Amino acid sequence: MLRNLEYFAMIENEQQMSNDSGHLSRRACWAGGKSLATVLMAKSLAQPELVSLAAAFIDGETLPVEPTRKALDAIWSNPQRAKAALQYGTTIGYPPLRKLLLERMLEADGQTAEQTGLSADQVIVTAGSNAALHLVSDTILNPGDIVLCGAPSYFVFMGTLANLGARAVGVDMDEHGMLPESLEQRLDYFEQSGELDRVKAIYVISYYDNPTGVTLSADRRRRLVEIAKQRSKRTKIRIIEDTAYRELRYWGDDIPSVRSFDEEGDTVVTAGSFSKSFSAGIRVGWAVLPRDLVGPVLTQKGNIDFGSPNFSQHLMCAVMEEGLLDLHLQTIRAQYAKKLVAMVEAVEESLGPIDGVRWMRPGGGLYLWLSVPEHLDTSHGGRLFDRAVEEGVLYVPGDHCHPAEYRNIPKNTIRLSFGVPPCDEIRRGIAALGRAVKQVG
Amino acid sequence: MLRNLEYFAMIENEQQMSNDSGHLSRRACWAGGKSLATVLMAKSLAQPELVSLAAAFIDGETLPVEPTRKALDAIWSNPQRAKAALQYGTTIGYPPLRKLLLERMLEADGQTAEQTGLSADQVIVTAGSNAALHLVSDTILNPGDIVLCGAPSYFVFMGTLANLGARAVGVDMDEHGMLPESLEQRLDYFEQSGELDRVKAIYVISYYDNPTGVTLSADRRRRLVEIAKQRSKRTKIRIIEDTAYRELRYWGDDIPSVRSFDEEGDTVVTAGSFSKSFSAGIRVGWAVLPRDLVGPVLTQKGNIDFGSPNFSQHLMCAVMEEGLLDLHLQTIRAQYAKKLVAMVEAVEESLGPIDGVRWMRPGGGLYLWLSVPEHLDTSHGGRLFDRAVEEGVLYVPGDHCHPAEYRNIPKNTIRLSFGVPPCDEIRRGIAALGRAVKQVG
Repeated sequence: MLRNLEYFAMIENEQQMSNDSGHLSRRACWAGGKSLATVLMAKSLAQPELVSLAAAFIDGETLPVEPTRKALDAIWSNPQRAKAALQYGTTIGYPPLRKLLLERMLEADGQTAEQTGLSADQVIVTAGSNAALHLVSDTILNPGDIVLCGAPSYFVFMGTLANLGARAVGVDMDEHGMLPESLEQRLDYFEQSGELDRVKAIYVISYYDNPTGVTLSADRRRRLVEIAKQRSKRTKIRIIEDTAYRELRYWGDDIPSVRSFDEEGDTVVTAGSFSKSFSAGIRVGWAVLPRDLVGPVLTQKGNIDFGSPNFSQHLMCAVMEEGLLDLHLQTIRAQYAKKLVAMVEAVEESLGPIDGVRWMRPGGGLYLWLSVPEHLDTSHGGRLFDRAVEEGVLYVPGDHCHPAEYRNIPKNTIRLSFGVPPCDEIRRGIAALGRAVKQVG
Repeated sequence: MLRNLEYFAMIENEQQMSNDSGHLSRRACWAGGKSLATVLMAKSLAQPELVSLAAAFIDGETLPVEPTRKALDAIWSNPQRAKAALQYGTTIGYPPLRKLLLERMLEADGQTAEQTGLSADQVIVTAGSNAALHLVSDTILNPGDIVLCGAPSYFVFMGTLANLGARAVGVDMDEHGMLPESLEQRLDYFEQSGELDRVKAIYVISYYDNPTGVTLSADRRRRLVEIAKQRSKRTKIRIIEDTAYRELRYWGDDIPSVRSFDEEGDTVVTAGSFSKSFSAGIRVGWAVLPRDLVGPVLTQKGNIDFGSPNFSQHLMCAVMEEGLLDLHLQTIRAQYAKKLVAMVEAVEESLGPIDGVRWMRPGGGLYLWLSVPEHLDTSHGGRLFDRAVEEGVLYVPGDHCHPAEYRNIPKNTIRLSFGVPPCDEIRRGIAALGRAVKQVG
């Protein structure tokens, strides 16, 4: 909460800021400068032998070259179908794909369309789920509005919120996800400060969270939905559920989505993506929207992108129709599970013996969240980060993943990704990190 | 200028509006309700025998099924290349494609990279040029800022400006495009009213304009750039040049882009698209940016779409590398030229004899702009529109294509598109329009 004043000063100075910054809009100024991703990428390019445990890319080896060719063949086997894929689509997206997406979600959630009242008219398709998150945010958030986010949270979305001039306020988390008590505390605070009307959304990455790897427990899913409904007074508080990693499950059972607990269907927006489960290059994401948001979000979408690539949507529809998605998921789940084991074993070996090092083994996703002893500073530009690069490994500093407004952002955390490198590189990278921690500590 | 007051009242009421409209952001409220495009599409669906001279789609018959297959084969002949297409790309876009786009533009403009100082670092790739237009606008415009647009202009972009809370102010046009005298008058007005600092851009569709079919003359290109530079005082006035139809040239010579007259390279943003020249479904557009805008636009892009589909970009790159774009352009130019002739002949026959009917034969593009006698109202919901639908033809009412702020928006104009229907349907549609005009007139 400490940063409120800064935020309001920022908004009041907006006109001046836009003049100071070479005739840019307020939003362009709020968006901030060079991103850490750019900095990390530059480091990787400058030092190619560096093991990157930073990038959230998917494994190049498992990219679906053959499945995609099969899906393309299915489309090209019928020239009318190929023509349809090459023509404009609609702003909402390709109807057969939207239908399949809805069916898949409902099946995973153990629900039927009748039970939920959901229809494919509430599914919009975007070029990646980031675009869906942006569109929904742009439709409900004014500058100064508040979004409650896990602390830590997905840093790209934190950038999107900053770009919209919205305030990202951190909520405490544990190994079962966002803490309902902490969420209520934040809401109490804003109720007392007269700002409850500015709280427009709660953002959760419900499966194998980026960056912590944590999955929100079923009890808490239910509780979060209850809290959002109870606290919606003059302003509706939505839950924006990001399910980008749901399909990357290696152990344990699937859990119904946060959306499945929203009986009235008026609270939860669920966003999803094929970027992790199939291909980030084809870039198809989606959102399932409460009915009242469909029209406004589509109007925004018409003005912002005038429809997402139709060809990509036909392609992903063929991938699903031909059963290629599920086949591919079997392959990548086995592959990523091995890499996750390799990373956990390497961490146990190289970092386990160090006092104050903690981590949690996730059941899926692409990330391992690591805490080092509290006196170590993992942030970019700090001694450990530089030492780690010298030893040959790149990581994402945990402080970078925090919502802007959170008291005491911890400085001793690290996001490790096992998505891209093969097992031996993972081991080499973790060994390098172990050396760096020992040297700096 | 009449609507200034309404605009400011709107901005002042923004908070109230967002509450009135079910907890939506200001931008969602500014974006307005159901679009005319939606209404027209619904009419088409409800009455399938209706000839649509409204849709700006490209001809289904000429969609590049074979060329696309060849380009896909070229990519799939090398598994590493296929993998690269299936992986994440960068926010700015695929480097070899950006290089080709720059080379193609410079070659068409008769310039070299050395002469202009341009580099591929200034080319960003988007999912369609609408996304590029939105990104640039979002980067330079605050609510209340002013964009000077041809009257009439591209109505989708008018929606984008409304969505950003910007003011679209109309500038008079004739058969050579935007009138420099009218542009100067508007700038004088804003200088006198103390609003010159709010004028951030001039928007021109420089080739075969949507909706008028007009191409901006070379003299005026030069003059517009001069005016933008001269009138840039405390705030830089950019020219946003939309070249979506440049490749659809059927007669006459190509003209260097507006950008080519910007010697300092600090004024003109040029946006382009493959949606008309190759495939709208693959959906690749781009913008060439003044150097100072690259960083800010990319930051916005990272926050809004987190990178455009990489697969589409690899595909269009292969299309260009294999020479398939130029081959395809030969086919569609011949095809569209025939349809343009069919439309012009039909208009001469059915509407030519009617007093007060005027039109101009364009040298390219997809549109014919028609004026009917002044006492006829062509607008949606008017007698002529309804009569035309009953006779079996759908058109875009010209008043719909006007910037919001323009005195005396003419009510007697029509945009006709010959993109989608075959020649016989075009003739049938125009004959129906002729009957409607005679009956209502």
